[in-house]
Order: sequence, then C-alpha cells, then structure tokens
Amino acid sequence: MDQIRPLLSKAQSVLVFCLKPQRITPSLTYCPTPLSIWIMVILQCLNPTGKLGNTCTVTFTGNQSLSYFANLKNLCWFSEPKLEEEIMKLHNVVGNATVEGYHIVVGTGSSQLIQAVLYALSDPLNEPKPISVVSAAPYYSSYPEVTDFLRSGLYKWAGDAHNFYKDGSYIEMVTAPNNPGGVMREPVVNRAQGMLVHDLAYYRPQYTPMTGPADHDVMLFTVSKCTGHAGSRIGWALVKDINVARKMVKFIEINTIGVSKEAQQRAAKILEVISDSCSQTVRLPELDNFFEYGQQLLTERWKKLREVVKRNKLLTLPTFQIQYYNFTGDFTEAHPEDVDCEKLFRGHGILTRSGKRFGSDPKCVRISMLSWDEEFGLFVKRLSTIHGIANGN
Amino acid sequence: MDQIRPLLSKAQSVLVFCLKPQRITPSLTYCPTPLSIWIMVILQCLNPTGKLGNTCTVTFTGNQSLSYFANLKNLCWFSEPKLEEEIMKLHNVVGNATVEGYHIVVGTGSSQLIQAVLYALSDPLNEPKPISVVSAAPYYSSYPEVTDFLRSGLYKWAGDAHNFYKDGSYIEMVTAPNNPGGVMREPVVNRAQGMLVHDLAYYRPQYTPMTGPADHDVMLFTVSKCTGHAGSRIGWALVKDINVARKMVKFIEINTIGVSKEAQQRAAKILEVISDSCSQTVRLPELDNFFEYGQQLLTERWKKLREVVKRNKLLTLPTFQIQYYNFTGDFTEAHPEDVDCEKLFRGHGILTRSGKRFGSDPKCVRISMLSWDEEFGLFVKRLSTIHGIANGN
Repeated sequence: MDQIRPLLSKAQSVLVFCLKPQRITPSLTYCPTPLSIWIMVILQCLNPTGKLGNTCTVTFTGNQSLSYFANLKNLCWFSEPKLEEEIMKLHNVVGNATVEGYHIVVGTGSSQLIQAVLYALSDPLNEPKPISVVSAAPYYSSYPEVTDFLRSGLYKWAGDAHNFYKDGSYIEMVTAPNNPGGVMREPVVNRAQGMLVHDLAYYRPQYTPMTGPADHDVMLFTVSKCTGHAGSRIGWALVKDINVARKMVKFIEINTIGVSKEAQQRAAKILEVISDSCSQTVRLPELDNFFEYGQQLLTERWKKLREVVKRNKLLTLPTFQIQYYNFTGDFTEAHPEDVDCEKLFRGHGILTRSGKRFGSDPKCVRISMLSWDEEFGLFVKRLSTIHGIANGN
Repeated sequence: MDQIRPLLSKAQSVLVFCLKPQRITPSLTYCPTPLSIWIMVILQCLNPTGKLGNTCTVTFTGNQSLSYFANLKNLCWFSEPKLEEEIMKLHNVVGNATVEGYHIVVGTGSSQLIQAVLYALSDPLNEPKPISVVSAAPYYSSYPEVTDFLRSGLYKWAGDAHNFYKDGSYIEMVTAPNNPGGVMREPVVNRAQGMLVHDLAYYRPQYTPMTGPADHDVMLFTVSKCTGHAGSRIGWALVKDINVARKMVKFIEINTIGVSKEAQQRAAKILEVISDSCSQTVRLPELDNFFEYGQQLLTERWKKLREVVKRNKLLTLPTFQIQYYNFTGDFTEAHPEDVDCEKLFRGHGILTRSGKRFGSDPKCVRISMLSWDEEFGLFVKRLSTIHGIANGN
C-alpha cells in the first residue's frame, strides 16, 4: 500500500475542478482519466488472492534474458516477440487500433516514444531549423518539457496548435482522448506540411467509447494507462512508415540501448491475462472481464464524489457520461479573474496540477482521484472544508 | 542459446587485432573486456542447475510495483531501496568505489546516465554556447553519437581530449579502464574549468586490478559489465554534488519517468548473490566466488586464442597479463598505409568494429570473442583462413 500512495499525491490526470461560475470554450472541457482508481482495480483483481489470482505471475531465473537483443530478425531488435504478439492480440480484442501493416516499436514508456518520434520525423538535412511541435491546448503537460529540455536543434515546442500560423513543416501531437479532458480530438492545424502523431494512451474501453480501430500514421500506447503498471515503463508505437519506425528504433538504441527485457516479459503476461478476460472464446468462468469489473467500482466512486461537489458553492465539476466516465463540461463566465485554483486546493491539503501546466487556465486544476478508500475519504473530507461547501446548499 | 548469439556478432568490446608490423603510441594499447565470455560464465554459474542454482530467481505477482515511485523520501524517487542497498554492498565487497557521502542515481543502463550527466553539468544560463564534451582517443565509440544525436544546444562533442585547446568550460569523459583498451586512465586536458565524468563500467575485479576505492565527483557503473545482464538496462551513478544528482534525476524523469521496477528488483537480487559469493562471512560452502570462477574459464579461452594468433603473419594481438586479462601492446611501424582491417575481417566472415569508430586507426579492429564453444571454434577456424596463418610459422 505504501508503494501506491505516493502516486496519488502526484497527479496522474484524473479529475478537473474549476472555480465557478465561469465559461470556458468547448475545447476546454475536461474529463477524468481515472488511473489511480484503476490501480485499485488492478490490485483487487490481480493480487494473488484476487479475481485473476496468480495468472499474472512471472518468474525470472538468473540466466534469463542476458542479451541486449530480443529478435535480430525484427526491425525493433530489442522487442520481445511475446510482447509484440500480446500487443496485437489486445488491439484486436479491444478494437481500438489496426495492427496489420504496422510496425511495432517498443519504448521505455510512451515518454521515450514521444522523443523517438520527434527525432524520427525531424529532417535536419532538408530543414536546417528545428521543426515546430504543437498541440491544441489544453495539452498533456509534459509535451513542452519533453520537446525542449535538451534545446534540440531538431525540434522545438511551438505551443497551442490553435495559435500556430508559421509556414513550413510541423508536428502536431493529437491526444485522443485528450489528457486532460477526455474528449476525442482531431488535428487542428490541417496544413499540407503537417505530420501527425496520435497519442492514444487513453483510447481504451475504460476511458472512452471505442468508435472503431484507429489507423493513423503514428499511434502511441502505454501499459501504464492500459493496466496501471506505470512502474514497468513499457509503451509501444504502431507506425505505418518503415523509415519512421527505423529512426524511432535508432533513437531508442542511442538513448537506452533498448528496453528492459524483464519489464517487457511481465507486460506481455499481463496483457495476455487482460485479453483472455475479455475474450469470449478463451475466457474462463472464474475470470471477470477486467474492464467491466473495473467500471463497476468506478461508478460507485464517482457517484460519491459528485454528491460532495454538488453542495459546493465555489467549485464545479463537469458532468460526465457514467457509461464511459467522460466529463463534458458546460461553464459560465469566470470571476474573479485572479484566483489561483491550485493554490486554493493546496491550502486545504490537496495537491493538484494547475491548468497553466496544460496551456490553459489557472482557474482550473487537474487533481488525482486517489485510490484507496481511506485516502479517498480523506480527499472528500478536505474537499468539504473548501469555502462554499459547508452548509450543504 | 539463440538469445545469446546475436550479442556475439555485434561487438561488446572484447578483443583487438591490429595488422602487423606496426607501432602505435602507448595510449593506443588495447585490452579485452570479455563480456561475452562473461555471459557464458553467468549462464553456467547462474542457471537453475548451475553453481548458484536458483539463488537468483525473482518472481513478480500481478499487483506488484505498479507505481512510478519507489521511494518518495529519496532524492532518486524512482530507485528501489533494495537495489541501492545492494549497490552499496557490492562496492564495499569489491572495493572499487567509495559510496559514503555519495548520491546514487539509477538509470536505464549507463547510456541514459551519460546523457543525464551531460544535461546536469551543462549550464545554459551562464554558458549560452553548448559545452564541449571530450574524451581521449581511442574512446568509447558511442560517446560522439550519444552527445550529438539530438543536436543539443546544451552540449556538443569536441573529439579527442588530446587535441582540445578551446577556452572555457568542458566535460571530459574519463573511461577507466578504457573501452577499448583496458588501461587505467587519468584526465588529459587538466584545466581549471574542466568537469570530469568517470565511466567506471569496467573497474571490476574480472577486468582490472582493484587499486583502491575510486572517489571521483561523478562515477558511472552498469550491471551489464558487472554480471552480464545487458538486457535489464540497469546502470547507476555515484554523485558527490547533490545538485548534479538532482539534475540527473530530473533528466531521467523527463526522458523515461524513471527506470523499470522489474529490472531494478532483479538486478538487486543478482548483485546480492554476487556479493554473497565473494563475502567471507556470508559465503556458503557450495557458492564459488563468482569472479574467481569466471577467471578460470577465461584463462583457458585466452590461451587457445593466443595459440592461433601466434602462427599468423599478418595479425598481432597485444600481450596481456593473464592475471587480469589486460592487453599491453608493443607494436612496430604500420604498413601498408591503406589497409582496412574491418574490411579484411568481414571478408572472412568475422564482424568487427573498426578503430575509426573509437577515434583511432582503421588498421585496428575491436572484435567480439564469442561465448559458446561452438561459436568460438567457428571464430578460430575463420581466423585461421586469414592470409598468414596457414603454415604454422
């Protein structure tokens, strides 16, 4: 339990409060990505006495997986064949992405893959200046830092895609569903010289309706948002163009000489069990559908939270469609102008991430939903001490 | 076995042949870093029926290590406490580095740590131009690429430290023992504004005499060169200055949001068993000293190789002190001038890495020693077909 707690105080996008009354443009509606609740689900479901029992257990002997290489015949020479197989199977079971005709590039989490794809899409021989990288606000808070921290001459963060008017090539990160926000996204700039990277970390049945298999040029996924195993640092990209895939593999080769074999093999096992739990043919009678099981728990948690927030005069929480845990907000005009929502919450012992971090408004925050009942109780209790909740009206 | 083979065809520094007769300056003497032989040792020693039996086995249940975090109280918040403990223990048992007063920063192999330390030592606020990164030739062949692949505005590869005369700050990579070469190294530039990074991957009893615990400002180590577990991607840095350590942690946070927990926990277990095998107090009667055991096997292999090379008219292999497997070469003047040693070997089915890659001479190559008897036999056989071996004189 101690190992999980710290995650909760550093937000994995979850829940956004805004000071009310206020109006935010439709593009700024938010949704939760309830990872930390998801972790509770995993713990209950996957622990040795839980629903999935010991089916997820993996063992390594001392002499296993010594080599840098996993499969020399493969374009991605460091990826475990079993992991590739399970990635393809899960995409087919869930129906969220086309895998046929794509190259799989495994990375140390999707952070590394984002850098790999920026490296792969930049073209210093033909474009002597760094290529612009944009994303529509509110965008994933790490994009600017990941793009600029090494002051690369290959690529450069150029901010909100809505305000991007520069000529020439550019890379647009399309996060769908968005983080924060949860709304499905389309490219915003739409010019001929644009290259698109679809960050589909949250395009999974527990977060959003599956509207069909995505088939974009570059699509990024991560185990952390699929099963909650953030500590393993495993992500993958589905890439159409073999030359882009090759350059991404090159990046990972230079950056970390591949990806931990232990993490890959464990991820393969966990994805296998999740796929089996969803499959009509493989599914064992005692194996609950992992996503359905999680949704039941989530429904109850969100219900409790909405009850507390309803009585608050100062805060507003976008409404959400209970079937998929999406928020679709409808806000009125903001005042006062200078309120810092993150500071307000911090004063009540609740750590949040300010809307500023997402290229958005400081009157909004993203806040972790916490995972254990004990912590959730504490969160709700502290929330109720924020001015405006007191008298239940 | 198949999983190991590919490693052998892509050289992990091992063995250097030079065309003879030739003379190379003393700084260009080479030594083997017999990692692939080492892997054979590991396989024999650590497999379930081997010397160390199942003592290295680790198991993960489905609900373990979900969080990004390992220890929030620690400067390196993603490092597993057990791994830090075993790192300290092994340094104390082996006597190769001081750990007291140092901060441990865990990385996804030492490649990531090299980038982390370049990021940490650069100072863009006070130094608007990229800081120069140098190393004495022949240097580790990845340094130039790792430094320049993102065209960072923070740091820039400036080549052989022997030819570095630019004013201002610089970072010198001191690889000791050197890769390639195996000779112990000291800084070459020696100016007041220099910052030193000691890459001590090979400063271990199986490669070189332990002349006492190193206590440099920044020291890099890796599991792959310690026990052969290259596939885990685990390295660590010992760092004196807390601010440098903090910036290194920041780099790893942005680059990969920490380091795989599975790989860390497995590395901790393996380091523990290796330490125990060396310890006078803990050591079990059936547990051979891991390093001594390996040295016996290495001695026999090198003996065979030297016998074959002795009969060759074209090639020379530096002599080595059998106690530590170091080569200390003594060469005569080179001719012909235009021979490409890598090409010559490739023509005989032996893949090597040219001396050019190390900022050195194309008349030298680094070549993998191979690990299995079968492959070693094939290597020796092909070697004997290179012109000059034929008649045993």
